[in-house]
Amino acid sequence: MDDTTSPPVKTIKRKLDLKEGRVDMSHGSGGRTMAQLIDDLFAAALDNEFLAQGNDQAAFDIEGGRMVMSTDGYVISPLFFPGGDIGSLSVHGTINDLAVGGANPLYLSATFIVEEGFPLADLDRIARSMAAASKDAGVPVVTGDTKVVERGKADGVFISTAGIGIVPPGLEFSGDRGQPGDRVVISGTLGDHGVAVMSKRENLTFETEILSDSAALHTLVAAMVETAGPSIRCMRDPTRGGLAATLNELAGQSGVGIRLDEAAIPVKPQVEAACELLGLDPLNVANEGKLIAIVAAEAADGLVDAMRDHELGAAAAVIGDVIADDRHFVSMKTAFGGERMVDWLSGEQLPRIC
Amino acid sequence: MDDTTSPPVKTIKRKLDLKEGRVDMSHGSGGRTMAQLIDDLFAAALDNEFLAQGNDQAAFDIEGGRMVMSTDGYVISPLFFPGGDIGSLSVHGTINDLAVGGANPLYLSATFIVEEGFPLADLDRIARSMAAASKDAGVPVVTGDTKVVERGKADGVFISTAGIGIVPPGLEFSGDRGQPGDRVVISGTLGDHGVAVMSKRENLTFETEILSDSAALHTLVAAMVETAGPSIRCMRDPTRGGLAATLNELAGQSGVGIRLDEAAIPVKPQVEAACELLGLDPLNVANEGKLIAIVAAEAADGLVDAMRDHELGAAAAVIGDVIADDRHFVSMKTAFGGERMVDWLSGEQLPRIC
Repeated sequence: MDDTTSPPVKTIKRKLDLKEGRVDMSHGSGGRTMAQLIDDLFAAALDNEFLAQGNDQAAFDIEGGRMVMSTDGYVISPLFFPGGDIGSLSVHGTINDLAVGGANPLYLSATFIVEEGFPLADLDRIARSMAAASKDAGVPVVTGDTKVVERGKADGVFISTAGIGIVPPGLEFSGDRGQPGDRVVISGTLGDHGVAVMSKRENLTFETEILSDSAALHTLVAAMVETAGPSIRCMRDPTRGGLAATLNELAGQSGVGIRLDEAAIPVKPQVEAACELLGLDPLNVANEGKLIAIVAAEAADGLVDAMRDHELGAAAAVIGDVIADDRHFVSMKTAFGGERMVDWLSGEQLPRIC
Repeated sequence: MDDTTSPPVKTIKRKLDLKEGRVDMSHGSGGRTMAQLIDDLFAAALDNEFLAQGNDQAAFDIEGGRMVMSTDGYVISPLFFPGGDIGSLSVHGTINDLAVGGANPLYLSATFIVEEGFPLADLDRIARSMAAASKDAGVPVVTGDTKVVERGKADGVFISTAGIGIVPPGLEFSGDRGQPGDRVVISGTLGDHGVAVMSKRENLTFETEILSDSAALHTLVAAMVETAGPSIRCMRDPTRGGLAATLNELAGQSGVGIRLDEAAIPVKPQVEAACELLGLDPLNVANEGKLIAIVAAEAADGLVDAMRDHELGAAAAVIGDVIADDRHFVSMKTAFGGERMVDWLSGEQLPRIC
């Protein structure tokens, strides 16, 4: 590509209308519009070296080591879904953001914004589910806050969790470290969470119930680090926006292209069927218990073997390669032998999926 | 008091109805009903040694020192008020929770839950105000998350911030350390924030505009620690529920009583007038730039002198004493020479004040 030409990624970007514009659902989609809101509004205002890292967690040195901090808001609807609820999700999600930053998660905080009239029994169920997830993971919720707003000013309950963790010496995962020749590894099947939530929302039932994959991935990450530590360039969990958004983000950060092999991407047959029914592409659907890693080629097979030994990595696979590409495109060799682009969605496919 | 009699604080407590009960506005008031929700539901489920500390922040040892973590949700209405907005407030509030735990605040995280249709210009104004507050305080927002919910499912924007900080060696503030004979110190006038917000909500105007006191208190705390470090038992910022809730909490945690001197409590004349008009008691009204400290008697005067040298402690004063009292009552010698109880409100006086 000619250096005098702007890359196409730039040319299709419209400026945020900060004067007359309004927030729409696409700003929460995990797709390109959301990335723009973050870049042009939040990062522009809050400009600092940590946000500029562009990762889902911030890393900084403290006396005694390197620490990461991460946070997520949870607005999922419905609050209870097959395989989890907003309580367990808010624990798993933030633990995972720490874990894919290479950190051993230490502590979580939680805020609850509750709508007046919300049943105490449901709140109790959510708190207990949060507690169980936190206990299973060995990461306690150490501090919290509760606010109540009037009926009609929220939707049941929203939770925000933040977490901190410590990165072992010598480990540095960052989204800008991908290099041509690296392999792309996924820890398991795609789309389970998004399809479980959508099925509940749409009252769909399937022969085999589809459960969210919501899970804490830090012990899987620890096993991966033990096997392939310094060969791992970065990890990320493909939540909102799915694998497509995550890989496009990473391609942009690392300044590379990515080529996937559709036949290698694990998707459960019932999830694939549900996606067809719902008009969804599994590559755009949120996951809450999966991670992708970009890893040096020579370490990829050993890494996948180690992952398969872990309960949460049983379906791990190499799904593609990092390639040189100034346009930072993510493409895919389809199951029929063709090639297609894997773009992130600019709009909103699945609102309030997490 | 006879040991065989239950203290009255216990006898007036009704159990949460976890079967049929619903959340009402009082559960977010900072008063007794909220304390009960936290104890009976959240702390019961999430049971751990850190929540059991009962402070507004959790403290734990990490390699290299002692760290604190704190979080708060912000649902204030209106979003913009005289003296601040939800952006600056969400920075100040969490910095203050860290500071009154004795920590030097290091980093903040932020989540935004935004209602579809919210003007981007307002969101930008909030982000910039947050950035300015964060820059002034020297405490960067290092990581964040944005979620969007459908129109009518939130109220403009809610923010949750979390923060971490490091406690200097040898310092240990905790709400259970008050002892009979200690003095109670306040850093300045009471009620400014609550009255500023209520005035804006009710469209009241006064000859002298009442501004929120929203401010980051960590440099004031640092000056206090320099002067009276080990003599300070604990600090707390009297936000939701005001001074009354904060002192009742501390009295309960420390197992002591507190006797205030009304004449010594600083309240601006215009705030006092507004409180009369609005039917509020300045002792129950939220502050966002004030702290109270419980300090060994011999260090109190020196501490107040040091506070008065700081811009944010110019009206600092000793306002009362810690006394022995098995009932853990907070009482006040009134300006007319009488004595009255200073109870926390069981219900909701000022919804969505922070």
